[in-house]
Amino acid sequence: MTTSESSRFAVIMAGGQGTRFWPESTPARPKQLLDLLGVRKSLLRISYERALGLVPPENVIIVTGRSIGEQVREDLTEIPERNILVEPVGRNTSPCVGWAALHVRAADPNGVMAVLPADHFIRDEEAFCNVMRVAMDRAGSANTIVTIGVKPSRPETGYGYIEGGESVDGDVLMARRFVEKPDRLTAEHYLRDGNFFWNAGIFNFTAERILTDIGRFLPDLARGLERIEEGVRGGDPAAEARIVEQVYGEIEGISIDYGVMERKEKGGIEVIPGEFGWSDLGSWGAIYEHLPCDVEGNVVRGGAIPVLEDVKGCLLSTSKPGKVIALCGVEDLVVIDTEDAVLVVPRIRDQEVRKLQKLAKKRKGD
Amino acid sequence: MTTSESSRFAVIMAGGQGTRFWPESTPARPKQLLDLLGVRKSLLRISYERALGLVPPENVIIVTGRSIGEQVREDLTEIPERNILVEPVGRNTSPCVGWAALHVRAADPNGVMAVLPADHFIRDEEAFCNVMRVAMDRAGSANTIVTIGVKPSRPETGYGYIEGGESVDGDVLMARRFVEKPDRLTAEHYLRDGNFFWNAGIFNFTAERILTDIGRFLPDLARGLERIEEGVRGGDPAAEARIVEQVYGEIEGISIDYGVMERKEKGGIEVIPGEFGWSDLGSWGAIYEHLPCDVEGNVVRGGAIPVLEDVKGCLLSTSKPGKVIALCGVEDLVVIDTEDAVLVVPRIRDQEVRKLQKLAKKRKGD
Repeated sequence: MTTSESSRFAVIMAGGQGTRFWPESTPARPKQLLDLLGVRKSLLRISYERALGLVPPENVIIVTGRSIGEQVREDLTEIPERNILVEPVGRNTSPCVGWAALHVRAADPNGVMAVLPADHFIRDEEAFCNVMRVAMDRAGSANTIVTIGVKPSRPETGYGYIEGGESVDGDVLMARRFVEKPDRLTAEHYLRDGNFFWNAGIFNFTAERILTDIGRFLPDLARGLERIEEGVRGGDPAAEARIVEQVYGEIEGISIDYGVMERKEKGGIEVIPGEFGWSDLGSWGAIYEHLPCDVEGNVVRGGAIPVLEDVKGCLLSTSKPGKVIALCGVEDLVVIDTEDAVLVVPRIRDQEVRKLQKLAKKRKGD
Repeated sequence: MTTSESSRFAVIMAGGQGTRFWPESTPARPKQLLDLLGVRKSLLRISYERALGLVPPENVIIVTGRSIGEQVREDLTEIPERNILVEPVGRNTSPCVGWAALHVRAADPNGVMAVLPADHFIRDEEAFCNVMRVAMDRAGSANTIVTIGVKPSRPETGYGYIEGGESVDGDVLMARRFVEKPDRLTAEHYLRDGNFFWNAGIFNFTAERILTDIGRFLPDLARGLERIEEGVRGGDPAAEARIVEQVYGEIEGISIDYGVMERKEKGGIEVIPGEFGWSDLGSWGAIYEHLPCDVEGNVVRGGAIPVLEDVKGCLLSTSKPGKVIALCGVEDLVVIDTEDAVLVVPRIRDQEVRKLQKLAKKRKGD
């Protein structure tokens, strides 16, 4: 059964902090608002435009945080203001998904929603949309939670995995379990096994389905959502915002993965394998991999003027177009310049940027 | 014989470009105007204050270039304007020394002048002044050119050397020859030999002596200086400047080392060995050596906030106090941030900064 076009919704979660892209990403300008791919579009805008391949424009909902609400509106001026849900504080993904589900259900009681991260990379958008249409149809017709599992191309230890089970309908597999980031040996086993997929953080379900599940597994949140629903039904955004502020002040933060996915009974979650050149763009090293390089493997972004002597495999970036970045005799380094900081780190140690960001924050506070 | 206080002059040559301290040094703000040692004084000011230990304030003459003349005046407001000689174009050191000698001779026909670089480091100023007094006295009484030879403490390949010969008067040795920067093996031989000294670029002579020598070895320059001398005698700085502009437009640039020193007859040049903690501060690596470091050997300047994780032996610098420089997993790097450029280079390759500066200039020009 095919879900009708108007019953399809895309919910883009745009609340992340992106500390791993420090110093370019900051709380005031997190990863999803940056043009990390050098295409003069933020990752959020790329995600929005991609979603238009799945749902009508009026059915795209963005959930974001108060500190960047204004910037999101400026980035996506064509979206009706009521489709941008601004959380007063971050409470992880469960409240975010729940609130968005209320809006979907209010617009269409049979609405199917795709929950999409705002800051990932997808090379093959057509393949992505094809998989997503199957997933949304399945979520609507089977009343299940349908995730997307990316076929692994390497024994990646930086991603979570979903183990697929028997087929329940064509390409749709039962999801046996979610597993956290594995060690190298386990990741190699997963790759050989063929039934393990990267968890891309993409979920599809009807609004009714996820609200029912939240009611079962997260009763405190469900009570809060009931109060918010009164605001949604009332149709006064200001009144709704006041209720949201109250509710968010009382509820706990919990991820939808931990709060709902891991507690669902066997068979309630399905996975559709897909291959569309996906990356979570989780670190400067991932950005390096996705940008064009010169013959020496050096990548330049941000309008930096590279001055290189005996340099290989480096990523150079500045927030000031026309600023020179001059390197000599170094390899595989990430060099990021912004107004407030310079970062120099080997690409292979890019995961330590979060630690440096915290240290810097502490130092600046001293 | 002791030269009287009032007959002693110090000529500070402050015309250098300092491309090896790029990107912090620029043509508009060369090395001698920078506070490279982090003492809130330019190297020029340090040199000026040091000269006051040798000569009366009114006998300090600064020779500099037009592009930085105004900044030199602002840096040294206590110097009478007539004591700052501003060259319209750089013509190496011979015209610079000759012009200054005209001023010294006009002030005192028996004047002895010490020619001093504006941008070197001297740790022990008392020891320096003691050696210099001996040198100036000798230059006045023997009518010779008296250089200072720094006793080498390591087989340095970055400096020129002076070979000392037999003693002609106590500590004063005949200078056998000047030698260019040696290779490692030769430098080790020089160190063991004990008769080779670092050429610190410091010369002492009477104005009459050097003008006579210029007359012998550089007749074109000598003719130009005769014309300039009319301006000097006329007492009108504007008229003098006009003549200087004409003359500098016609003469060739030639160093005093090559133009005079290497052509003098045996016995005409002497050397006095000295030990006063001298360095030419020729590169970022030299600056690193002269600044205090933390337990991991990291040096921070310019008010940078260091954020370091597994980092050893690095020099961090910014032109924007309070800017974070965050490094992780690197060793012995120089990281310099300015408004216009970021430089990252291994300390051991700091001599290549000149090359990078040239490349950057070319790139920016494109």
